[in-house]
Amino acid sequence: MSGFVVWRSAQQDRVEQALSSWVAADVPAGLGLAMRYAVLDGGKRLRPLLVLAAGEAVQGDGAAALRAACAVELIHAYSLVHDDMPCMDNDVLRRGKPTVHVRFGEAQALLAGDALQALAFELLVPDDGSMPPALSAALCRQLALAAGATGMAGGQAVDLASVGLSLDQAALEAMHRLKTGALLQASVMMGAATAQVQAGVTRELSAYGASLGLAFQVVDDILDVTTDSTTLGKTAGKDAANDKPTFVSLMGLQNAQAYADALLDQAHAALNRSGLAHTDTLHALADWVGRRTS
Amino acid sequence: MSGFVVWRSAQQDRVEQALSSWVAADVPAGLGLAMRYAVLDGGKRLRPLLVLAAGEAVQGDGAAALRAACAVELIHAYSLVHDDMPCMDNDVLRRGKPTVHVRFGEAQALLAGDALQALAFELLVPDDGSMPPALSAALCRQLALAAGATGMAGGQAVDLASVGLSLDQAALEAMHRLKTGALLQASVMMGAATAQVQAGVTRELSAYGASLGLAFQVVDDILDVTTDSTTLGKTAGKDAANDKPTFVSLMGLQNAQAYADALLDQAHAALNRSGLAHTDTLHALADWVGRRTS
Repeated sequence: MSGFVVWRSAQQDRVEQALSSWVAADVPAGLGLAMRYAVLDGGKRLRPLLVLAAGEAVQGDGAAALRAACAVELIHAYSLVHDDMPCMDNDVLRRGKPTVHVRFGEAQALLAGDALQALAFELLVPDDGSMPPALSAALCRQLALAAGATGMAGGQAVDLASVGLSLDQAALEAMHRLKTGALLQASVMMGAATAQVQAGVTRELSAYGASLGLAFQVVDDILDVTTDSTTLGKTAGKDAANDKPTFVSLMGLQNAQAYADALLDQAHAALNRSGLAHTDTLHALADWVGRRTS
Repeated sequence: MSGFVVWRSAQQDRVEQALSSWVAADVPAGLGLAMRYAVLDGGKRLRPLLVLAAGEAVQGDGAAALRAACAVELIHAYSLVHDDMPCMDNDVLRRGKPTVHVRFGEAQALLAGDALQALAFELLVPDDGSMPPALSAALCRQLALAAGATGMAGGQAVDLASVGLSLDQAALEAMHRLKTGALLQASVMMGAATAQVQAGVTRELSAYGASLGLAFQVVDDILDVTTDSTTLGKTAGKDAANDKPTFVSLMGLQNAQAYADALLDQAHAALNRSGLAHTDTLHALADWVGRRTS
C-alpha cells in the first residue's frame, strides 16, 4: 500500500472514532440515533481528510484540526439529510442505506439536520481550554460563511431554481462553487487556519481548494452517468432524470473528463506555488478526487 | 408611557434595523428574500430584548450584545420556519402572515431555515475586530448548546414523540425547558457574557432565565386556549387539536395561571438576589411575559 492509502485509512478511522464520541446517542427522543445514523459508517470523509492534510501541510494544531475536520463533516452530513428530503431531491438511498427520513420519518430528519449544524459549531468551541479562542472564532466564521446563504445553502437555492433551465457553463460553475465548492474549499482553509501562515500560502491553498472543489463536482457528474447506484451508494442517473444541467450534459463526457483533469492540474500547480514542504498528502487527495469511482 | 415601554420600542427598532442590515436580500435565487420574510417585521423580539437587557444589567459591551441579540433571534426565526413545515406542525399562519413554506415553497423554506442558523453564528464572529475572540467563542458555544440536540432541537424531538401521550407535569416541563427554555435562558446568559461577572451573578441570572423561560411557555399554553388566531398572529387552539399535552390540559386554566405567576415571582427573586444595580428592565421583561396577550 502506498503511504497515502495508509494515511487515508488511518485518518478515516480517527475521524470515525471522533465523530462517534462527539455525536452522542443519549440525546432526547431518538434524535441522537438519527444524528448518528446520518453521520457514522459512511462516506469517503473527503472534507475531513482535506482539513487534516492541510493542517499537516502547515504543521498546525492537530487537535484543533480534528475538531475542524469533524465540524465540516457534520455540516456535510446535515446537508445530505435535508437535501434527500421529499421537498428537495426526494431520495431514498444514501451511502448504500435508506436515507434518514425514510428510516426515521421526515420530522426527525429535519430536526437531526438542524441539530447536526448546531453541533458542528459546538465542536469548534470546546470549553476544555484545548483551543485558543481566536482559533475557535476564526474557524466558526469560516464554517458559517461556507455553510450559509453565500455558500452551500445559497448554492442549493440556485440549484433548485435552475431545474429545467439551460444554464451555461459559467452559471453552472457559479452554482457548484457555492453548493459543493464552498465547503470543500473551507475544509482546506480551516486546516490551514490551525497554524499561522503567510498570506501567499493562504492564497495558494485557497486556489487549490477552489480547483479541487470544482473538479470534485465535474467528476460527480461523470460518475452519475457512468456508474450504477450500487457502486455509488446513492441513486445514479438522478440529475438527468430531474432535468438538471450537469457538466456532462453541457460539455459531453469526454470534454468533462478533460476539464476535470485540467482543474486537478491547477490544484497541483497551486500547491507547488505555495512553497510548503509537506504537500504530498494534499497532492494525493487531488489525485484521489480525480480517480474516484464512487 | 413608562420607561420600559419607551426602552422596549426603541430596542425593537434597533434590532429590526440591525437584522435588516445583516440578513441581506442580495443572496442567490431568492433565498435572501425568504430569509428576510422569515425574520423581519414580526414578533415581539423577546429573546433579543432579554439579551440587551441582560447586557445592560451587567454594563457589558453594547455592540456585542446587539450581535448576540440578533443571532438569538435568527435561531428562533429558523426554528419557526422549520417547525411550521408540513412534516412538523404543518402551519399556514405565523405573525399574521402566510408561513414561509406557503409563501416560498417547502424546499426554499428548508434552505432559508438552514441558512438562518449559519448566519446566526456568522454574526457572532465579525471580522472587523469589533468583538474580542474570546467573547465570540463563548457566545458561539452558548448558542450552539441552546440550539442543538441538548437544547431546542432536542426539545422539539421530545415534543414530536409526546403527541398523544399523557405526559406528567415533570415530563412536560423537561420538554419545554429544552424546546423554548434553553434559548430564552441562553438569551439572558449571552447578554451577561458581554461583561465579566462573578459566578454568583451568573447563577442568579441563569435562574432568572430558567424561570422566565418556563413561565413564557405556561403563558403560551394559556393564550392558546383563551385567545383567537387573529390576536395571536398564529393558529390558536393548535395544541388541543394536535392532541398535545399542555400546562392547561394538565393543570386546568386557573392553576396554570397561578403557576405562571409563581414562576415569574421566582424570576424576580433571582434578580433581587443577583445584587446587580440595573435590573429594572429585566424585571419589566418578566412582567411583560406574564401580562402578554399574544
